[in-house]
Amino acid sequence: MTDREFFKVTSLETVLELIHTFPCVNEEILPLNQSDGRILSRDVISKIDLPEFNRSTMDGYAVQARSTFGASENMPALLTIIGTIEMGKVPTVSVNAGEVVRITTGGMLPEGADSVVMVEHAQTLDEHTLEIFKSAAPLQHVTEIGEDFQKGKKILSKGNRIRPQEMGVLAALGETRVQVYKQPVVAIISSGDEIVPIEQTPGLSQLRDVNAHTLTGLVRLSGGVPLYLGIAGDDLDELHGLCKKALVEADMVLISGGSSVGSRDFTIDVIQGFTDAEILVHGVSISPGKPTILARSKQKAIWGLPGQVASAMVVFHVMVRPMLEAINGLSKNRIGTTHEVSAVLSRNLASVQGREDYVRVKLVHQQNQVYAEPILGKSGLIHTMVKADGLVRIDTNSEGLDKGAPVKVILF
Amino acid sequence: MTDREFFKVTSLETVLELIHTFPCVNEEILPLNQSDGRILSRDVISKIDLPEFNRSTMDGYAVQARSTFGASENMPALLTIIGTIEMGKVPTVSVNAGEVVRITTGGMLPEGADSVVMVEHAQTLDEHTLEIFKSAAPLQHVTEIGEDFQKGKKILSKGNRIRPQEMGVLAALGETRVQVYKQPVVAIISSGDEIVPIEQTPGLSQLRDVNAHTLTGLVRLSGGVPLYLGIAGDDLDELHGLCKKALVEADMVLISGGSSVGSRDFTIDVIQGFTDAEILVHGVSISPGKPTILARSKQKAIWGLPGQVASAMVVFHVMVRPMLEAINGLSKNRIGTTHEVSAVLSRNLASVQGREDYVRVKLVHQQNQVYAEPILGKSGLIHTMVKADGLVRIDTNSEGLDKGAPVKVILF
Repeated sequence: MTDREFFKVTSLETVLELIHTFPCVNEEILPLNQSDGRILSRDVISKIDLPEFNRSTMDGYAVQARSTFGASENMPALLTIIGTIEMGKVPTVSVNAGEVVRITTGGMLPEGADSVVMVEHAQTLDEHTLEIFKSAAPLQHVTEIGEDFQKGKKILSKGNRIRPQEMGVLAALGETRVQVYKQPVVAIISSGDEIVPIEQTPGLSQLRDVNAHTLTGLVRLSGGVPLYLGIAGDDLDELHGLCKKALVEADMVLISGGSSVGSRDFTIDVIQGFTDAEILVHGVSISPGKPTILARSKQKAIWGLPGQVASAMVVFHVMVRPMLEAINGLSKNRIGTTHEVSAVLSRNLASVQGREDYVRVKLVHQQNQVYAEPILGKSGLIHTMVKADGLVRIDTNSEGLDKGAPVKVILF
Repeated sequence: MTDREFFKVTSLETVLELIHTFPCVNEEILPLNQSDGRILSRDVISKIDLPEFNRSTMDGYAVQARSTFGASENMPALLTIIGTIEMGKVPTVSVNAGEVVRITTGGMLPEGADSVVMVEHAQTLDEHTLEIFKSAAPLQHVTEIGEDFQKGKKILSKGNRIRPQEMGVLAALGETRVQVYKQPVVAIISSGDEIVPIEQTPGLSQLRDVNAHTLTGLVRLSGGVPLYLGIAGDDLDELHGLCKKALVEADMVLISGGSSVGSRDFTIDVIQGFTDAEILVHGVSISPGKPTILARSKQKAIWGLPGQVASAMVVFHVMVRPMLEAINGLSKNRIGTTHEVSAVLSRNLASVQGREDYVRVKLVHQQNQVYAEPILGKSGLIHTMVKADGLVRIDTNSEGLDKGAPVKVILF
């Protein structure tokens, strides 16, 4: 063993604490119908009660409940039909004892009525007379004023992601414009003399820039805006120049370099070229992904990712995505959780104590069970990533997992 | 009970078969970096071997394996260092017995070498002499030509969604432009005299158009392009006009109407106004979501969705999204599966035999278990959707589920 093995690695736990030391991106205002997927930058307080009127939840008859008390199949209550509620119009009738008004789902209860009898529990004898076969409770089939949302109450919290249902709520409250966090811009820089643009036919010993495209997809999937700045050869000035540009134009920088010890040192040198730069992490106790670098300059994160694309993907899912979510303002308790599913391991998996192992798995649905099936094959190969649905984590303190063990799968 | 209860309902199973009777959208060609999330419309066959050269997966020394046979800590093999492989350049040296060349991860193996010794298993005595402490096997730490992808082989299949790793593969293969299915355009029409645009302050008895915004988010989340055509009052001609426009401009039509029996009949009347229209489904045996309509005109699907937004969301997740994925070309075995997670029910849930029940749940992560916790409250309320993370399905033949039962949760 050489001294190189002993560079001090950081635990994943520590890295995941560090991601919260970076500031959030700024806010912007969007039209509601463009806000889906974004994260709220302000709490949403309702300016209205919802519903704003007592609303029927059934097709039937609005009635005073007490007019029906004691009604049964054998002893129906006889009531007088005094009109019909028109949708979207304020009722002009009011309901007294012994009277009913026809109403449809969503209709506004008229004055006097406190309950709705379903059509199924009633029968018209003639145009003006109704039999009711069942006693109705007060507020039965009625949504009361403010039952869904109350005026002045906090309805949605800052840090929540806007899903379709949140869009619905915001629409209901009349919030036509929404205050959200901007999408973080993530600069992507590839480095290495062997990397060529994908349009180019690589010479023997060269490779197309696979990482930049994989990272572009990952950034977009995580709510960021990818900004591809191109390939820097193994040239300190060139990489420094791209990095400088990235720190101006982006909120976070990803340098996907070679995974060799030499190219790691190279990335470190470039980062240290910035006067305010601070190397926070140089090596993480996970596998794959050990040669990861995290630094800070101008309050922004610079990640040095492993050159092997499969390792870079693991690092992205385990560390970069959580940071991206954090600087995008997602509330702390939601970071990471939405991408995990439970499964059962399909076979034994060995591991080394003292580091977290991430194993690629395919999800297999069989009967009522979801199995996580480890993908075999060298870790550096891209095809193992294509076959995989996600990653299983094996804990630092574990020597492995047994077949049948319950596992969490981080979905790709 | 009135006759209205007896309209013939269709099983969910039948509806999910019907979704495959609608044609796929057309193809288009996209630049690779814009293709993420799209679905491949052609198989991808590799035009090259990947890697195109024998590649080192470690930092170390390229060697003929047999030069190291028998080496150990006590009896190291002594070899001559004859040079260094430069990244991205074709090696000019060739390695004979007793010789090594320095190589870094990703480097091309020189002629003669068939194995790589890690730096950790070697030590330089001087500039030209290396001790190796461990016997190296042939092809150790080497990715062979074509080991990842072979020329002429099918690499990705038509019907696969392009994830970040698929973008990486396509980049590696030099596929700068990708043939994918277009995103289906989904027209959204709201109907009902009580519905007003969200910019407008609703009068008493009126409601803002919650459904259109919820559906906009749902369509986009499912890979479609929402096309909001506005609100038709309860006016046959107006709704017919919007529907006609929708059938020209969109690939699928969603009419979100009142959920009352009357407004269902109204939607049916409008659909039947198209000479080629065929009503396929009028009521589905699920709850909520029973008053769902599915029709076909000009080979396109017209859905009549329940007016209650919570019910419309369930119908969307259970039926509309699978159809959207199907007409978007997603392969049959992937439809729906990616949105389900496993959990354990946190309490007993009753159900009615003969229909599928969908219950809103919140996912609670506790220790090593994910619990599905049913959300209480009236089903029509929007706030139950905001609190929920997904839906638990209770089977047609079940009378309910017990606390602790394993369940599948369809994520929102």
